[in-house]
Amino acid sequence: MSKHYIATLLTDFGTADGYAAAMKGAILAVCPRAQLVDISHDVPAHDILAAAMVLAQAAPSFPSGTLHVVVVDPGVGTERKILAARFGAQTFLFPDNGVITFITDSMPLEAIVSVRDPRYVTTGPVSMTFHGRDIFAPVAGHILNGLDIGKLGPKPDTYKTLDLPVPFQREEGLFGQVIHVDRFGNLISNVSQRDVAQWRPQQAGLCITCGGRQVGPIQATYAAVEPGQPVALINSMGLLEVGVNRGRACDLLAAGVGAEIAVVESPSAAG
Amino acid sequence: MSKHYIATLLTDFGTADGYAAAMKGAILAVCPRAQLVDISHDVPAHDILAAAMVLAQAAPSFPSGTLHVVVVDPGVGTERKILAARFGAQTFLFPDNGVITFITDSMPLEAIVSVRDPRYVTTGPVSMTFHGRDIFAPVAGHILNGLDIGKLGPKPDTYKTLDLPVPFQREEGLFGQVIHVDRFGNLISNVSQRDVAQWRPQQAGLCITCGGRQVGPIQATYAAVEPGQPVALINSMGLLEVGVNRGRACDLLAAGVGAEIAVVESPSAAG
Amino acid sequence: MSKHYIATLLTDFGTADGYAAAMKGAILAVCPRAQLVDISHDVPAHDILAAAMVLAQAAPSFPSGTLHVVVVDPGVGTERKILAARFGAQTFLFPDNGVITFITDSMPLEAIVSVRDPRYVTTGPVSMTFHGRDIFAPVAGHILNGLDIGKLGPKPDTYKTLDLPVPFQREEGLFGQVIHVDRFGNLISNVSQRDVAQWRPQQAGLCITCGGRQVGPIQATYAAVEPGQPVALINSMGLLEVGVNRGRACDLLAAGVGAEIAVVESPSAAG
Repeated sequence: MSKHYIATLLTDFGTADGYAAAMKGAILAVCPRAQLVDISHDVPAHDILAAAMVLAQAAPSFPSGTLHVVVVDPGVGTERKILAARFGAQTFLFPDNGVITFITDSMPLEAIVSVRDPRYVTTGPVSMTFHGRDIFAPVAGHILNGLDIGKLGPKPDTYKTLDLPVPFQREEGLFGQVIHVDRFGNLISNVSQRDVAQWRPQQAGLCITCGGRQVGPIQATYAAVEPGQPVALINSMGLLEVGVNRGRACDLLAAGVGAEIAVVESPSAAG
Repeated sequence: MSKHYIATLLTDFGTADGYAAAMKGAILAVCPRAQLVDISHDVPAHDILAAAMVLAQAAPSFPSGTLHVVVVDPGVGTERKILAARFGAQTFLFPDNGVITFITDSMPLEAIVSVRDPRYVTTGPVSMTFHGRDIFAPVAGHILNGLDIGKLGPKPDTYKTLDLPVPFQREEGLFGQVIHVDRFGNLISNVSQRDVAQWRPQQAGLCITCGGRQVGPIQATYAAVEPGQPVALINSMGLLEVGVNRGRACDLLAAGVGAEIAVVESPSAAG
Repeated sequence: MSKHYIATLLTDFGTADGYAAAMKGAILAVCPRAQLVDISHDVPAHDILAAAMVLAQAAPSFPSGTLHVVVVDPGVGTERKILAARFGAQTFLFPDNGVITFITDSMPLEAIVSVRDPRYVTTGPVSMTFHGRDIFAPVAGHILNGLDIGKLGPKPDTYKTLDLPVPFQREEGLFGQVIHVDRFGNLISNVSQRDVAQWRPQQAGLCITCGGRQVGPIQATYAAVEPGQPVALINSMGLLEVGVNRGRACDLLAAGVGAEIAVVESPSAAG
């Protein structure tokens, strides 16, 4: 693969202000060849879990050598660390608040450091309220220019991951919960394809319920059911999801983050 | 013109999730030099007509050799075809659901194929719910790298266009309807400048009505009327539009998609 | 710094239509190497003050040689001029409506012209409603290609800036007002760090009030107060701002653009 200078940005800055653009300008001021790609700036303000999910939706598709810059950082200006890490062949720059949680589950950690070296931070005064522009961006520019992240600071003792609910098994089924509602109103759960396979290697005869309502078997696609009907499937992240063909599951099922999603024996199969 | 690697993206994925970015990553994984330009990710979910209109607003302005990737695809996972086509000197990759309708009206079809060849699709397992990332994106990357679309599959027997209302003439006027409401609240109709010219070569003495309300003659610009007043004009796509100077026509006239827009003889001219 | 072709775009076109993309296409048609960066397309429609603020949030972070293209232009199609100017080492292309106000306060004017030369405007017919695509974009492409802005037209006699409220001092304090509410609900005032320093060189013993409510002293960061509590600080633009730690000041204080923000002696210090 040819050398590239791809950096993604994931923030909760919104797009109505100039904050995300200020970060882009500050990256380009250090590395004018940067190819900047927005992951999202519309993560709900201060929502670390949503940011972690969105990062996991997007990052694995990028080529080796991509740098992902994450600034969903409600602790800006406090003692929280800024970390740079290599997972697989990609690099991540992020506040130490758990936003990296799902990446740690799916990509191998190769290196991690706490960003400290003042040489790579902006030469002007650092705003205590906008580390995205004054610290993350210039450091990102230097990484794109080839700086080894090992030069940025020492290895931290530990780093944070979110304390998330985990699916559990009981006699009558596998129980998880909704952890993200996407743009289409799809209810994305913490139950992975692997969890389901461990519980019942055969998917035949299984039935999904959500918020106490019976949805049906795991289908291959939204269009497997009639428009307006709910459908369960394994989504593009490998997670169990409940959607509605051409509709919004969160509305139809009146469910959101925290709602129970269960995998049980199909009543007909059990009967 | 120098060689470029410009690809646009038009989806209904929104920008709060990582889906659009996952597609970008998957294009860049095949063609790291790609210059990615968002047309929009904020088309209403599953709204093929809106997507067709937005594509027609933007695509004609791009340079020769641009690739437009459209993933507004409520039929994902069904038997609907994925098509690649060259209209004029630009290439389009899109689901066969009518999203290409307005492009077929304005740009000459040079070549069209049904995307089938598995060599150009992702080497991993294809998600049945995210063809944007797993089929459209890698195919787009290969097209940017120079792949002739003729290699992607056979010519289809036909392709879909939307069955849209067409303007009609009666003794008393030319009658069309609103087919799109834009961000400014402008009411964009299916009546083209050419339709008006065919009906009355002279625009003098004409009056536009919308939803039964008299708007006035066709003006050159929004600012031809006082702020807050409605105004009819031929818009930047060559379509008859009703707007409000510094205001929102959809609100002032309480009109939306489907509302009647008519061109009649001016009452004063007729009197 | 290596030669680059960076152009930013700031419009009120929204992202649900194809208008912003049409502009990008028209820039790329003239300069295919352009690196296009969105500042924002979500400025409220026709809101020149908001656009001026967003431009000032972002532009100073960009590298020398960047071109900023601003099309928040409620006067499109009228006699309002289109200006090209160099402030510091950056170039700006904008309608003469005051959108450049905060840039004139912070960056030195090096050159300014009124864009007139028809050779650099689109060769097709110019839409009276979409100068962004038909005038701004091609001119931007030529500037990126190296055209000296002095070739675009004559120096204007004057250019517009917004007639904004200015902070004033009274015996009991320094009084300004909210001029922008950002995505996080932060209340950004017209009182600069310099204004405060001129009034009281020592920040100790000062108290900020907003909308008549006492907020407290000027802190270094949002996290200096408990979550949910209001906080005053000097923001990343050097302006006095009232926020809420992990919350929305505009909601908590029921304040918006126009609300009074005052700097007074702390009641405890005065007691």
